Amino acid sequence: MYTWDTTVKLHQTDAAGIVFYGNYFRIVHDAYEAFMGSLGFDFNYIINEADFLVLIAHAEADYSGSLRPSEKIRVQIALDKIGTTSFVLGYDVLNTAGDSVCRLKTVHVATDKKSGRKRPLPEKLRAKLVAAT
Amino acid sequence: MYTWDTTVKLHQTDAAGIVFYGNYFRIVHDAYEAFMGSLGFDFNYIINEADFLVLIAHAEADYSGSLRPSEKIRVQIALDKIGTTSFVLGYDVLNTAGDSVCRLKTVHVATDKKSGRKRPLPEKLRAKLVAAT
Amino acid sequence: MYTWDTTVKLHQTDAAGIVFYGNYFRIVHDAYEAFMGSLGFDFNYIINEADFLVLIAHAEADYSGSLRPSEKIRVQIALDKIGTTSFVLGYDVLNTAGDSVCRLKTVHVATDKKSGRKRPLPEKLRAKLVAAT
Amino acid sequence: MYTWDTTVKLHQTDAAGIVFYGNYFRIVHDAYEAFMGSLGFDFNYIINEADFLVLIAHAEADYSGSLRPSEKIRVQIALDKIGTTSFVLGYDVLNTAGDSVCRLKTVHVATDKKSGRKRPLPEKLRAKLVAAT
Repeated sequence: MYTWDTTVKLHQTDAAGIVFYGNYFRIVHDAYEAFMGSLGFDFNYIINEADFLVLIAHAEADYSGSLRPSEKIRVQIALDKIGTTSFVLGYDVLNTAGDSVCRLKTVHVATDKKSGRKRPLPEKLRAKLVAAT
Repeated sequence: MYTWDTTVKLHQTDAAGIVFYGNYFRIVHDAYEAFMGSLGFDFNYIINEADFLVLIAHAEADYSGSLRPSEKIRVQIALDKIGTTSFVLGYDVLNTAGDSVCRLKTVHVATDKKSGRKRPLPEKLRAKLVAAT
Repeated sequence: MYTWDTTVKLHQTDAAGIVFYGNYFRIVHDAYEAFMGSLGFDFNYIINEADFLVLIAHAEADYSGSLRPSEKIRVQIALDKIGTTSFVLGYDVLNTAGDSVCRLKTVHVATDKKSGRKRPLPEKLRAKLVAAT
Repeated sequence: MYTWDTTVKLHQTDAAGIVFYGNYFRIVHDAYEAFMGSLGFDFNYIINEADFLVLIAHAEADYSGSLRPSEKIRVQIALDKIGTTSFVLGYDVLNTAGDSVCRLKTVHVATDKKSGRKRPLPEKLRAKLVAAT
């Protein structure tokens, strides 16, 4: 399990006073980028140097609470599943008290940058993902 | 079915050259706000005047394509289900050619603004939702 | 003068109940993209096909009002100045009543995509900018 | 001088491959929120408890470089000026190499939450701002 701590930013909230539902997908992607960076696969490398991309094919969120400006939060990432060409990440967003306010899931598929076609996950990324979670 | 047309904005894309996965949830919420406004329930009214809120309890997206800056797109909204206290909206995001690039779903629950508790959908909203879709 | 109409989106507001100060720069860029598109220079063309970019070297905003969710607003764009390699746009953001709530300015510089160096504005863009405003 | 470190997130970039010009105003506001929090004035307190607001009356940015996904960056905040009812913050955004890529300025005005009118800065905030920078 990978853990990433951050703080709710004002611009992530909306006029209802709490974090906008769509911004949870940003928050967990921020955590995912930190996670991938910790494995040696930061997004500058993936986008500008690698020969593969990792596209998101599905995303979902279940909301059980809310978050206000300046709240200290924690995102926990788990590797729910890993296959030949894809993997599934599960996220739990915890408020300061440690209560879960949102659980999310993203399905990632490796594609070849040139052809745009599905391809096996790079072996090194696969190994690092399994080792890290 | 409610239809809303818009254009992809540069700030909705990311360095991969296409719309960021999380921004589809913004795009369909923009469409949802226009839809609710067309029913007489705009978000200024809901947030600043009404005695109820309509919270999103679940959201999901299935991605089958991508969108580039300046693409003209269409969002189609359907009422997938309506209950006593909640309703489910389905969205289809179409590119200029009319091909679906993303299908989304959001589950909305009416809550009382004071107590924060679930409550029946306001009868007028319920009737308008059913009539409009 | 180019005019672009839109509506305030919930995700552009923050927990203070009004549009987040930084989002005015998004709103006027949305208007600018529509303006450039109307001149035959949409951002998909500029980013993915043209041999030049138009970078923003300076941006500023003076706030005199505020905007709430669902407000219908108008952005007016004027060409404040045009030189050999650069131009300056001025924006006025008007609320439903027609009152100015924010005035902004952006300074744009043409650069060569390969070298990254300043270059003269493409003649066709220059002519269209002058003709349109 | 207050210093705040962060990393460029993918959703802050756009299809040109670098951080969208308007997102620098988000980044420095994130730093400003951390700064205010360090002084005991976090935005949850200001928005939901205090009797004053600190509105932004002017903002500007001068861009001299660019930022790519995953870059580690630093924001330095200086108190450029402080008056009876307002203060001016200056920001320098530095890339990993320590080079400035953007300098920004924001002008903040204290207002009374009820009347919406200008008011003197709360004495405690004033003292903390001066002491911290």
